[in-house]
Amino acid sequence: MKKSLIALAALAAAGAASAQSSVTLFGIVDATIAYGRGGGAGAASRWQLSHSGYNSSRLGFRGTEDLGGGMSASFWLEAQLSNDNGTGATTNTNNQSTGAGPTCTVATTTTTTTTAVPPVAGTAITSTSTSTSSCTAAINGAQGLTFSRRSTVSLAGGWGELRLGRDYTPQFWNLTVFDPFGTNGVGTTQTLNSIITGVTAVRASNSIGYFLPGNLGGFYGQAQVYMGENAQTGAATEDDGKGWGARVGYASGPFNVALALSRTKYASGRVQQNNIGGQWDFGVAKLQAHYSWDKNGATRGRGFLIGGLVPVGPGEIRAAYSQYRTDLPATSVDPRARKFALGYVHNLSKRTALYATWARVRNNNGSSQVLNGGVSPTANQSSSGIDLGIRHSF
Amino acid sequence: MKKSLIALAALAAAGAASAQSSVTLFGIVDATIAYGRGGGAGAASRWQLSHSGYNSSRLGFRGTEDLGGGMSASFWLEAQLSNDNGTGATTNTNNQSTGAGPTCTVATTTTTTTTAVPPVAGTAITSTSTSTSSCTAAINGAQGLTFSRRSTVSLAGGWGELRLGRDYTPQFWNLTVFDPFGTNGVGTTQTLNSIITGVTAVRASNSIGYFLPGNLGGFYGQAQVYMGENAQTGAATEDDGKGWGARVGYASGPFNVALALSRTKYASGRVQQNNIGGQWDFGVAKLQAHYSWDKNGATRGRGFLIGGLVPVGPGEIRAAYSQYRTDLPATSVDPRARKFALGYVHNLSKRTALYATWARVRNNNGSSQVLNGGVSPTANQSSSGIDLGIRHSF
Amino acid sequence: MKKSLIALAALAAAGAASAQSSVTLFGIVDATIAYGRGGGAGAASRWQLSHSGYNSSRLGFRGTEDLGGGMSASFWLEAQLSNDNGTGATTNTNNQSTGAGPTCTVATTTTTTTTAVPPVAGTAITSTSTSTSSCTAAINGAQGLTFSRRSTVSLAGGWGELRLGRDYTPQFWNLTVFDPFGTNGVGTTQTLNSIITGVTAVRASNSIGYFLPGNLGGFYGQAQVYMGENAQTGAATEDDGKGWGARVGYASGPFNVALALSRTKYASGRVQQNNIGGQWDFGVAKLQAHYSWDKNGATRGRGFLIGGLVPVGPGEIRAAYSQYRTDLPATSVDPRARKFALGYVHNLSKRTALYATWARVRNNNGSSQVLNGGVSPTANQSSSGIDLGIRHSF
Repeated sequence: MKKSLIALAALAAAGAASAQSSVTLFGIVDATIAYGRGGGAGAASRWQLSHSGYNSSRLGFRGTEDLGGGMSASFWLEAQLSNDNGTGATTNTNNQSTGAGPTCTVATTTTTTTTAVPPVAGTAITSTSTSTSSCTAAINGAQGLTFSRRSTVSLAGGWGELRLGRDYTPQFWNLTVFDPFGTNGVGTTQTLNSIITGVTAVRASNSIGYFLPGNLGGFYGQAQVYMGENAQTGAATEDDGKGWGARVGYASGPFNVALALSRTKYASGRVQQNNIGGQWDFGVAKLQAHYSWDKNGATRGRGFLIGGLVPVGPGEIRAAYSQYRTDLPATSVDPRARKFALGYVHNLSKRTALYATWARVRNNNGSSQVLNGGVSPTANQSSSGIDLGIRHSF
Repeated sequence: MKKSLIALAALAAAGAASAQSSVTLFGIVDATIAYGRGGGAGAASRWQLSHSGYNSSRLGFRGTEDLGGGMSASFWLEAQLSNDNGTGATTNTNNQSTGAGPTCTVATTTTTTTTAVPPVAGTAITSTSTSTSSCTAAINGAQGLTFSRRSTVSLAGGWGELRLGRDYTPQFWNLTVFDPFGTNGVGTTQTLNSIITGVTAVRASNSIGYFLPGNLGGFYGQAQVYMGENAQTGAATEDDGKGWGARVGYASGPFNVALALSRTKYASGRVQQNNIGGQWDFGVAKLQAHYSWDKNGATRGRGFLIGGLVPVGPGEIRAAYSQYRTDLPATSVDPRARKFALGYVHNLSKRTALYATWARVRNNNGSSQVLNGGVSPTANQSSSGIDLGIRHSF
Repeated sequence: MKKSLIALAALAAAGAASAQSSVTLFGIVDATIAYGRGGGAGAASRWQLSHSGYNSSRLGFRGTEDLGGGMSASFWLEAQLSNDNGTGATTNTNNQSTGAGPTCTVATTTTTTTTAVPPVAGTAITSTSTSTSSCTAAINGAQGLTFSRRSTVSLAGGWGELRLGRDYTPQFWNLTVFDPFGTNGVGTTQTLNSIITGVTAVRASNSIGYFLPGNLGGFYGQAQVYMGENAQTGAATEDDGKGWGARVGYASGPFNVALALSRTKYASGRVQQNNIGGQWDFGVAKLQAHYSWDKNGATRGRGFLIGGLVPVGPGEIRAAYSQYRTDLPATSVDPRARKFALGYVHNLSKRTALYATWARVRNNNGSSQVLNGGVSPTANQSSSGIDLGIRHSF
């Protein structure tokens, strides 16, 4: 469904189709009426027209060139799209907090002049004034398109694929592939909503990736290193944003299972993200589950999901229960969020679908997750949300 | 003329054309040498290479999928383009002033220490210093492409069209359709230049729109609701940016007339924009007129345009007189701006045209409109401007 | 190689190919592993995944319409691309420093209240506190796509081409055409790295350009004026960013030579950029050289390059020596940077190439150039860098 625009090289110029070398324009426009409400005294609800309730909205350009001898070169440029208002989305340039979004820095100079007449001989009256300013910048409606979802160039052959640029990290795949809601919309697994997995939980910039070839009898795998690009000055932060991830799996018939490990360096504490996931397709239903164990400095986190997909005529019922528990080092009270999500997707065609999702999250021990922009004034409240949308791909 | 790039789904892959399902890349690049000058003592002129003097420059992607049974799904992503310098343009994410452009916020902390020796026992010398900072952010050359002109996904059938996303508001159409200058360039109608019609005068984000089908014997119409997406906390501003618009019309042969009404909520004062417009095509000339009555809180405004288009060989003469009067609540002096505009468009082809426009605006009672960047140091001065440009569409 | 996507107008609609009118999607994705190191005590190195080591990464849309009678209209929209992280790049809207990137402005209000009890009758104790804030804004990962590389609309005929918009300046071409490294990557000529050639050294916005037709027996040429677009208020800066450039050349067989002159006005000092360059293709090697003499206010600069390209099977060896000397007005010590660069490009196809470049720059008399993000804590140190990359065009 993403192959709708295929314009061939030399088709017009020479009249000869060259199926090996093509450029494809592709995308998804997914709009959803999203409702969310918080819990507790002073709770508030919110209605929005939002995006990406079923699949992530995007606009992309990609192509492949056959180099002969089983070799090929390819590129992939894919932008995130907020089709409810027309903005793009930010990316992260260095896998560190400084590489995301706009920033502003204020320099403040305060001069204080005190003319003091000593009321007692030899005793001065002093006045000191210190002014400190900081600023935050928001891009709001000015956010243009960036290829934040993926921007890569690849060389591939019988030995696999070498890929350079901004790409998904290996540690992300199990969370989305083995989530019935595909980490989109109000039903997204709690194992991705963890705040401890950091900047490279989903994607990394400045990455060099290697993918195993597709003919290994069901075995698949990838490894990736990514750079923080700091000058090697000997500072404690010189390796911030540098890391690696790896994923290996095995798929055969109805069965699919994969393991991923990752490490990213930061002076403030190394981030580790690990997970294992799998699915079994019984035909009448596809069962999915994954388990993740993460660490950010001294803070640990563990989560899991169990769910499934049930085909119903031209549609599909989706359901999942997911949980994440954060193990704070200084206290025995571990914040925990548990979500149950239920949804239905009705396919009008391969490209166009209507969908509805309901989800509810319960918070304990200081956790304060809210869904779809609802407001809970205090922690430990429940929150629920609904998506009602349309997904159109091209 | 916007159908120049039509790449068919499956054309290359299967060799079979599927005319129902297509993706179209389209756009307009319109560049104009723009001159403007203000009036009064200290007036200044300005020369610019500007854009969109005849038609709005844009780059877009759109497509339609035939779902069978008279149903179709479609998407439309259209970005504004400043082709004089390569930037895009901002959009507005929430139909409120906070949703446009970049912002920055400064937090200032001022600490004042006073060591005071009492000159009289029991009487202190106190010194208080308060420092307040605010900041404004400008994006300048960093403004990327956003789909600010339109970003929608639609489902259509014999019952009409349901459209979700960022789109024109119904209240805009009469002002542009019944303006010989199409609300572009130095000749743009004064009824659009009103400052009281607010954020949703042209477009709204987070909108849900419905359009009547095209087979109603000349009757046409649309209705739209749009959301401000604020949390429903009970605050006075909780519904800011929420509103609706509706437009109904009738077109038959040379005749076309339409009425539009709209309301948008803001705690600072509800915005109402209403207008009626029409045209009669006599063959040798097409006459156009519209009238608008608006309200923003306690401030009212009224305006009108009368103009026409005269075909001349491969070209067209355009002329319009428009006026807008703002009725300030606290005074009987109502600012008024009156504009006369005259232009000629010479079509080199259906896609490419040369054009020239001259306009002059007269200001009274405190109005201070200037054209094409001219500078009038005081209000109540006249200003004139010229566009000389080329429009190329694809 | 940039013609890979050619979708014809009316191909689908009418079944008739119209080769004259086409829209082309084109681009380059060039990724490089870039290493740089500085010199002197405390020097630091840096590893990056960078872009544009061989050719500038880009994404573009362009098209031409045949108007008949030898006339044509065309457009060209080309965005810069940082494919290592997915961002775009800023442009400059007014050929002045204010037109680039994001800015923020802080307004600070300081109120000081002093309650002073006169210790001596008639003598006040006064306290004055002044607080001044300034801020800088960075866009980081929020930078969207802009058509900063080129955004133009043209009208062409037997008399040449008239081009409006943002385009390369005439004064840039000799530096890149006659540089074996094409002003890209670690080997880029030092004559472009000059800090005195200013905002319009490579491109200008708001430009009107004229190009000689292609049938003048080897003679070629172009002239361009560009506007700063300031109001003509009589201020000293009213013409800032306004300027012109011109280039004439002659190419015949293996021989090519060209001269370019330019002037840009700024109240702070007029910028002049002038250069001459040429090449001779001996078949076994192509020799290239250029010489530039520039001026920015009272500061002068002079530089040159001598280098060449040697075809080797499916590849090419590249080598260049370049130098730039800045003649500061107030001192006889003239900063000088000298670079030697050596590289090899291996073509896998016309569209895809692997490349490696090594370069070293030596600094004297206060010059402090570093390559590929290396850090030299003091001036007058040497720096070296390596690019190892892949270039894929479409």
